[in-house]
Amino acid sequence: MTTTALTEHDAMRRALELALRGPRHGVNPQVGCVLLSPDGDVLAEGWHRGAGTPHAEIDALSALEVPALAIGATAVVTLEPCNHHGRTGPCSVALIDAGVARVVYAVADPGVRSAGGGERMRAAGIHVESGLEADAIDDAIRPWLTATRHRRPFVTVKWASSLDGRAAAADGTSQWITGPAARADVHRRRSEADVIVVGTGTVLADDPALTARDGSGLAPHQPAPVVVGRTEVPERARVRRHPEPLRHFTTHDLASVLAELYDDEVRSVFVEGGPTLASAFIAAGLADELVVYLAPTLLGGPKTALTDVGVGTIADQRALRITDISQLGDDIRIVARPGDPSPSKE
Amino acid sequence: MTTTALTEHDAMRRALELALRGPRHGVNPQVGCVLLSPDGDVLAEGWHRGAGTPHAEIDALSALEVPALAIGATAVVTLEPCNHHGRTGPCSVALIDAGVARVVYAVADPGVRSAGGGERMRAAGIHVESGLEADAIDDAIRPWLTATRHRRPFVTVKWASSLDGRAAAADGTSQWITGPAARADVHRRRSEADVIVVGTGTVLADDPALTARDGSGLAPHQPAPVVVGRTEVPERARVRRHPEPLRHFTTHDLASVLAELYDDEVRSVFVEGGPTLASAFIAAGLADELVVYLAPTLLGGPKTALTDVGVGTIADQRALRITDISQLGDDIRIVARPGDPSPSKE
Ligand SMILES: NC(=O)c1ccc[n+]([C@@H]2O[C@H](COP(=O)([O-])OP(=O)(O)OC[C@H]3O[C@@H](n4cnc5c(N)ncnc54)[C@H](OP(=O)(O)O)[C@@H]3O)[C@@H](O)[C@H]2O)c1
Ligand SMILES: NC(=O)c1ccc[n+]([C@@H]2O[C@H](COP(=O)([O-])OP(=O)(O)OC[C@H]3O[C@@H](n4cnc5c(N)ncnc54)[C@H](OP(=O)(O)O)[C@@H]3O)[C@@H](O)[C@H]2O)c1
Repeated sequence: MTTTALTEHDAMRRALELALRGPRHGVNPQVGCVLLSPDGDVLAEGWHRGAGTPHAEIDALSALEVPALAIGATAVVTLEPCNHHGRTGPCSVALIDAGVARVVYAVADPGVRSAGGGERMRAAGIHVESGLEADAIDDAIRPWLTATRHRRPFVTVKWASSLDGRAAAADGTSQWITGPAARADVHRRRSEADVIVVGTGTVLADDPALTARDGSGLAPHQPAPVVVGRTEVPERARVRRHPEPLRHFTTHDLASVLAELYDDEVRSVFVEGGPTLASAFIAAGLADELVVYLAPTLLGGPKTALTDVGVGTIADQRALRITDISQLGDDIRIVARPGDPSPSKE
Repeated sequence: MTTTALTEHDAMRRALELALRGPRHGVNPQVGCVLLSPDGDVLAEGWHRGAGTPHAEIDALSALEVPALAIGATAVVTLEPCNHHGRTGPCSVALIDAGVARVVYAVADPGVRSAGGGERMRAAGIHVESGLEADAIDDAIRPWLTATRHRRPFVTVKWASSLDGRAAAADGTSQWITGPAARADVHRRRSEADVIVVGTGTVLADDPALTARDGSGLAPHQPAPVVVGRTEVPERARVRRHPEPLRHFTTHDLASVLAELYDDEVRSVFVEGGPTLASAFIAAGLADELVVYLAPTLLGGPKTALTDVGVGTIADQRALRITDISQLGDDIRIVARPGDPSPSKE
C-alpha cells in the first residue's frame, strides 16, 4: 500500500471516503475502515458493500497482505465495531483475534443488538478511542443513525412548488414545473432510498411509475413503491408494474406504517407526496428531512404544495434548519431539517 | 487628481461607482462622470446628488482645477448627456461649450424630453460613442430606466413567507416570521423607494407605520405612504402620522394609480402587500421586480402570501428569472424579475 504515513485524523477522513462507496440504502450503515501500522502506514482499507457482505473491518483485515500485519496495528473505523452475531461474526471479536492494538472509531453504534463492541475490545486489552470526526460522520450516515436510534425509517419529504408554494395551477396542471436538473436530483435521491411513499391521491391523479431512473434507464437500485390510503390502487396502475413489489397500507396512521416498514428492514423512506400525505408526515412530526424544489414561477390559486401541517397559530410553527441551498438549473433546491434555525446562536 | 492613466473602460466603471453615490429614489437617475485628459489622466469626477442639484457632467466640469482643462478632454458618463432645459441647462451644451473633444456614454437616455444629447454633440463636432459597459449600467439604474421607458413607476413587490408560501398561521398571527437581517433589508429597500404601497386590508389588520428605519431611527429618506382600496383609512391609523403625507387611492385600477404617481414624479414604488394587493400587481403584469423573503419554517393552512395571480392553467404560469439568492440571517432572500428563467440558453 502507500508508504506515506497518515495521522489518525487523515485516516478517519479516508475511512469516511471509503464508507461512502457503499450503498446508502438498505438495512446496514455505510462504514469504512483503515488499518494503520504503528508508524501510520496504511496496511489495508475496507468498506461495507451492503447487507450480506463483510463488514468494513473484516473487509480491511482480509485485504492485508499477510494476516500477521494486524498484530499491533490501529484500526480506524467510522462506526463502533459491532458486537453481535448477525450474518457475520462480531467485528469486535475479529479485531481482538487479529491482534489489533488500538481502535479509533467516530460514532458509537446506536443499535440495541449491535452496540457494546468498544467495551468488549477494551475488556480484551485493546486501546479504544471514539469521537474523532464524529460530526462529519454523524452527518454522513444520519439517515441510518436516525432510523436505528428511533427504530423507524428515516423520512425524507420531498415536494416541488412554484416560488409561492403551489404544486399546480388552479386547474391541476403542473407539467414541468421543475427542470431536468431538479428531476435528475429526485431520481438520484429515489435510488438512495429503500422505499418511495405516495398517497392514493397521487396514484389516482398521476399514475406514477415510482421508479428511479438515471441517464441510461432504470437505476441499479430501485426503491420499493409504497402507497398509503384507504382507496384501492387500480389494477392497471403503473406502480403495480414496478420492478419491486408494491406495498399498500390501507391506514392513515403513519407511525404504524413506519413501524411495519422498519420491521421489514426499511431504513429510509422518500415521501413524494402529494400535498395531503406530505403535510400529514410533517404534522405528525415524522419528517426528518425536507427536500424542496422551488421553480422560478408564480402560480397562485388553491393548489398549495402543503395543506394543513397542524399549525394553528404562529407559536406552533414548524421551525426548520436549512442545511443546503443550491441552484439546479433554473430551480432552487432547499434541504432542511426540523429544529431551531440556528442552534449555534445561543 | 490621480496620475495613473485609465482606459475608457476603467473610467466607465469608475463613473458607475460615482453614480451609485447619488440617491436611488427620486425623479432623476443615478449618473456618474469622469473627465479624462487625452492621455487618460483623470481630470475631474462628478455625480448627480438628486433633483435640484447639478447633473454629473456639470458636477465634473465644475471640479476641474481650471475650466480650460476640458478643452480636448474625453467625458466618460454612465448615461447619455441630457438635451433638455430642466432645472439646469442641457449637459450636451455644457460639454460642447467646455470644449470637450470626445464623449463616451453607456446607456442612451430613454426620456422623451431629455434624449438627443448625443446627436446634438455629434452635430457640434464632438466624437460621441455609446454602449461601453451598457449591461452593467442598465442593470444598476434599471428602476429609473424602466420608469422612464414605460412612463410609470418601477414596481417592486415584496413579501415574506414561510418556506411553504404562507404569510401567517391559520389564525392570522405572523409575528417575527423573518429575522432581523431580513427586516433591516426591507427597511433599506423602503428608503430607496419613492413610495410604499399597501392595501386597505394591511392598514386595517396591522396598522403599519410604513416608515423606513435604520440602526439609529428614521432613515434620512422616507418613502411616502400610499394606500389603495375603497375602504376608509381610519382617523387614528399610524400611516397618517408618517413624516410624508399619505396618498389614498380609492380604486382597484392599479395602472391608473401608477399613472397618477408617475405624474407626481414618483419613479419607484415598493409594494408591501398584503397578499391581495401583491397578487393584483402580479396579475396585472405590473410587477417589475419581486423580493421574496423565505423564513425557515412551515405553516401550512389558508394564509398564503399570494392569492390569485391570474393563472388558471400551467401554460399561463408567471415565469420568473431569478437574479439573486442570498441568506440573510436564517432567512433566504430571492430577487426575481418576470420573464424567461434562463434567456441565455439558446
Ligand atoms: N408537487 C409535488 O411535488 C407533488 C408530488 C406528488 C403529487 N403531487 C400532486 O398532488 C396531487 C394529489 O394530491 P393529494 O394530496 O390528493 O395526494 P396524496 O397526498 O398522494 O394522497 C392523499 C391521500 O393519502 C391518503 N392518506 C394516507 N395517509 C394519510 C393521512 N395521514 N392523512 C390524510 N390522508 C392520508 C388518503 O387516502 P384515502 O382517502 O385513500 O384514505 C388521502 O386522500 C396530484 O395532483 C399530484 O400531481 C404533487
Ligand atoms: N407577508 C407579508 O409580507 C405581508 C405584507 C403585508 C401584509 N401582510 C398581511 O396581509 C394581511 C392583509 O391581507 P389583505 O390581502 O387583506 O391586504 P391588502 O392586500 O393590503 O389589502 C387588500 C385590499 O386592497 C384593496 N385593493 C386595492 N387594489 C386592489 C385590486 N386591484 N384588487 C383587489 N383589491 C385591491 C382592496 O381594498 P378595498 O376592499 O378597501 O377596496 C382589498 O380588500 C394582514 O394580515 C397582513 O398582516 C403580509
